[in-house]
Amino acid sequence: MSAHTLIHFLLAVAAIIVLARAFGWLARLVGQPPVIGELVAGVLIGPTLFGTAVSGWLLPADIRPAISGLANLGLVLFMFIVGYELDHASLRGRGRTATSVSIGSIAAPLGLGVLLAMWLAGRHDVSDPLPFALFIGAAMAVTAFPVLARILTDRGMVRTPVGGLALASAAVDDVAAWSLLAVVVAVAGADSANPWLPLLCVPYALLMLLVVRPLLARVDAARARAGRLTPDILAVVLVGLLLSSLATEWLGLHAIFGAFLFGAIMPRARASADKAAIPQARADTASSEAVQKAEPNGADKLRVEILERLEQVSVLLLLPAFFVLSGLRVDLSTLGGTGLLELAAILVVAIGGKFAGAYAAARLNKVPTRPAGALAILMNTRGLTEIVILTVGLELGIIDERVFSMMVVMALVTTVMAGPLLSLVYPRRMVERDALAVQRPGAPPAGYRVLVSLPQGVAPAPALVDLAADVAERGAAATGHGTGEVVLSWLVPYPARPLDVGSGLSEELLGMTTAMGELAGEAVRRDAAELAATRGFDIVIHSGGSGESRTSGVTSG
Amino acid sequence: MSAHTLIHFLLAVAAIIVLARAFGWLARLVGQPPVIGELVAGVLIGPTLFGTAVSGWLLPADIRPAISGLANLGLVLFMFIVGYELDHASLRGRGRTATSVSIGSIAAPLGLGVLLAMWLAGRHDVSDPLPFALFIGAAMAVTAFPVLARILTDRGMVRTPVGGLALASAAVDDVAAWSLLAVVVAVAGADSANPWLPLLCVPYALLMLLVVRPLLARVDAARARAGRLTPDILAVVLVGLLLSSLATEWLGLHAIFGAFLFGAIMPRARASADKAAIPQARADTASSEAVQKAEPNGADKLRVEILERLEQVSVLLLLPAFFVLSGLRVDLSTLGGTGLLELAAILVVAIGGKFAGAYAAARLNKVPTRPAGALAILMNTRGLTEIVILTVGLELGIIDERVFSMMVVMALVTTVMAGPLLSLVYPRRMVERDALAVQRPGAPPAGYRVLVSLPQGVAPAPALVDLAADVAERGAAATGHGTGEVVLSWLVPYPARPLDVGSGLSEELLGMTTAMGELAGEAVRRDAAELAATRGFDIVIHSGGSGESRTSGVTSG
Repeated sequence: MSAHTLIHFLLAVAAIIVLARAFGWLARLVGQPPVIGELVAGVLIGPTLFGTAVSGWLLPADIRPAISGLANLGLVLFMFIVGYELDHASLRGRGRTATSVSIGSIAAPLGLGVLLAMWLAGRHDVSDPLPFALFIGAAMAVTAFPVLARILTDRGMVRTPVGGLALASAAVDDVAAWSLLAVVVAVAGADSANPWLPLLCVPYALLMLLVVRPLLARVDAARARAGRLTPDILAVVLVGLLLSSLATEWLGLHAIFGAFLFGAIMPRARASADKAAIPQARADTASSEAVQKAEPNGADKLRVEILERLEQVSVLLLLPAFFVLSGLRVDLSTLGGTGLLELAAILVVAIGGKFAGAYAAARLNKVPTRPAGALAILMNTRGLTEIVILTVGLELGIIDERVFSMMVVMALVTTVMAGPLLSLVYPRRMVERDALAVQRPGAPPAGYRVLVSLPQGVAPAPALVDLAADVAERGAAATGHGTGEVVLSWLVPYPARPLDVGSGLSEELLGMTTAMGELAGEAVRRDAAELAATRGFDIVIHSGGSGESRTSGVTSG
Repeated sequence: MSAHTLIHFLLAVAAIIVLARAFGWLARLVGQPPVIGELVAGVLIGPTLFGTAVSGWLLPADIRPAISGLANLGLVLFMFIVGYELDHASLRGRGRTATSVSIGSIAAPLGLGVLLAMWLAGRHDVSDPLPFALFIGAAMAVTAFPVLARILTDRGMVRTPVGGLALASAAVDDVAAWSLLAVVVAVAGADSANPWLPLLCVPYALLMLLVVRPLLARVDAARARAGRLTPDILAVVLVGLLLSSLATEWLGLHAIFGAFLFGAIMPRARASADKAAIPQARADTASSEAVQKAEPNGADKLRVEILERLEQVSVLLLLPAFFVLSGLRVDLSTLGGTGLLELAAILVVAIGGKFAGAYAAARLNKVPTRPAGALAILMNTRGLTEIVILTVGLELGIIDERVFSMMVVMALVTTVMAGPLLSLVYPRRMVERDALAVQRPGAPPAGYRVLVSLPQGVAPAPALVDLAADVAERGAAATGHGTGEVVLSWLVPYPARPLDVGSGLSEELLGMTTAMGELAGEAVRRDAAELAATRGFDIVIHSGGSGESRTSGVTSG
């Protein structure tokens, strides 16, 4: 690197960091996710306003490869994180409703998007209309899980039923969108010389699932032995990630799919752990030894440590480099009258299709009107995911720069509008009311409500539950009513510091969700049947988190 | 980045990580610092053995700019760390001897190197003999502080007097070598169009010291307010580092000088803190409130947190990218007979000059022969510092690729030989004997030895020292001898985990050195005079660390 190049390179890296922090801060100031600011920064210094004047000075041609290298590392890392957080995202217990909302929110924009694309194809430089139409349809159907999760957390909506439903639907959408896109890219990107190459994706995926995934469990074991994430372990993970990414790129898919799949097969905490793994509390007092053993699962530690090590460089430099470079490629200066018409059509299809599909599916599943509206707005956030998909389409030549620019605007608009629209449709006081309603399900018991509070991971011993039930029973008898309530509760430790990378689904929420799943699945199920058989009590599980779950077969209170 | 380029880029990044870990592991296996392995990996895949066959496949021309970008970030980060650790390096208490050893170990190889360079200049493609000769001389005079510190730590030599002396001498050498090199580069790199440009270095340095340095103290204050290193604080530090680097590059110096200076002006813990800042222990018991206040200085936390955040990506990817790229540029295949002669001459001057200068200066200062020999061997390690300097010379066109290759071999040889030679000259049992001798200075007292043990940062109250002196006095009287000993000791907390970046001067060592300095400077000096005036006792300060210090004016035991 010559002195001149080095100066410009260092300047560009500094500028990206400054722009990302400054515009991210501005975005937060107006209640938007920081990444919106980073993208807008890219658009602002890009050709729309200044032609090549600013971008040519800040990012001259000779340093583009170096910055592009940083951006590509950021992209691969981002997709790895998205894949790694997949499991935490699939919140249990809302299967049917979430699936139908997801199907509705994908099918409607996909169908309308394909129709729109057929109209657009005639007006743009499209080499092959089929992949173009499929790609536009898939891009319309995207919901960005990370942005959605952050909006829910910021507004306290994770504690309402609709928040949990939105998370689950978006998680299904996420997987569906990436799968759909993989097919589209395989169709579009098929090299005429090697048309069979994308077919190798099937053995590649099998290799990853059947061979690499079990091997990665050893990484977890190595971390447990070392007691911390050593540089060697992190090196193994990074090298695996890079090789997986380049394998999919070589197979004619994009590197992002390999990165996503590698994240998805990383070892993770099993919510339904071995029964033996959860120590039982003694009826008199929780044994401190048991508490010691009940620390977070090793796989969870691995995830947090890996993201912690990668977060600073990702958040400060690599991801901003990617989003600023993406924004730079947006050129709205040549849009003109017909372009505005096309943009309007894209916005109508994207917003209308997504809203109609999600809203109709939610109403069919008896979700009330306001929460259904909120859900439909939430499913409209396309955020980072859309930008990644559009960049792939642009790089593969499926869409041209003008369509790319308009679709980026669509992604920005659908993401930015979510906050203000939600405030209208589902204002904060309603969120709080619904969150409270979840925490006080059914009528309050006329007898005593007995709280059994335990450290996380310690199962309530039958004797302890019995004791609590006795108290509740006596209380019910004393007040002359037949109902009482035993509340089993785990104290989930508050995490020291939320991570800056990842879905924004904070550690706190993850912890609560996991705790609720374990408590419901492990501790209570064992005693519930027996308890329900002998006494007339409700067993209600509170997590203070993303909803509530009721053990089945228990007489109602 | 096209699909083809992206595949090669991801492959190259993966290969660099794998090579660095594998060869670093091999190097550790044979008792060498890991960086030697990384450099050798670069040499092995480079032109010497395989021509351009391997390097051309692994690092094709179209991805070189991207990898070079990573390598340059690594270089800037490395120099920042070197500068940041400067203060910790300058261990107090050995001023005169260290300075004369340092002068000797610089002057001899510098002078001989300039003479050698005059001979070499005629045999190589040298545009301007003066900067060439100065550069070779400066490169001969280098001692690598980081490698030296790691060798001392690995061998337990930090606890011997010669270890402390070597650290102090190398610290002086480090500053001298960088200053010398800055002058040489300014002379050599002076643009004929702007010959006055390097003169701007003076106002630049003044700006950094007088304006930026006080501003950086606010960064420390911001960290203290936030209670942790926020992304915004890290962003400010990184942007400052990048701007300082590009400023020196623009001024015709190299970016490394700006990075080094920025590290050097970062806020740091003051070892000679305010007297008021060290709480006094009460004579009855150490107050726990005092212990709370006596946590490590905020500036020290800032340093550790910044290095922690940067270490993983630096150690795994950025620094290896730099060293592998440097190794790649070494071509020994065209050396031939005359080249071997030149290489031999370089080795003789480098090793002989450094050894003679350091040994003579040490002997003049009454260091015994074996420790003086060990010191001379230690001062010969040139490690990473030399590679950085040589790369700068190559990039500025001061030296050609052949001289660069021979000088890299010299750097490797002088670093690799240190371990085995030390084992011969100063074997481990002698190290242990000398370390023990430091810990038991003078004859053991005939009376009682009274230990006053306090948490770090808590000054021994006069009353407490009085109490201990009373006990020792009575013991001395009871045994009929006039001598006893009061030992003041601080318990230095063992650090959770040493950092992988930086000098390898482990936290433990830093903590002990600081503790000893504070204990000697603050706590005891206050009481020593008064104590010595009233009683006949020795005050001996042990740190278990890099030496011992005796308060003056105390009657000998």
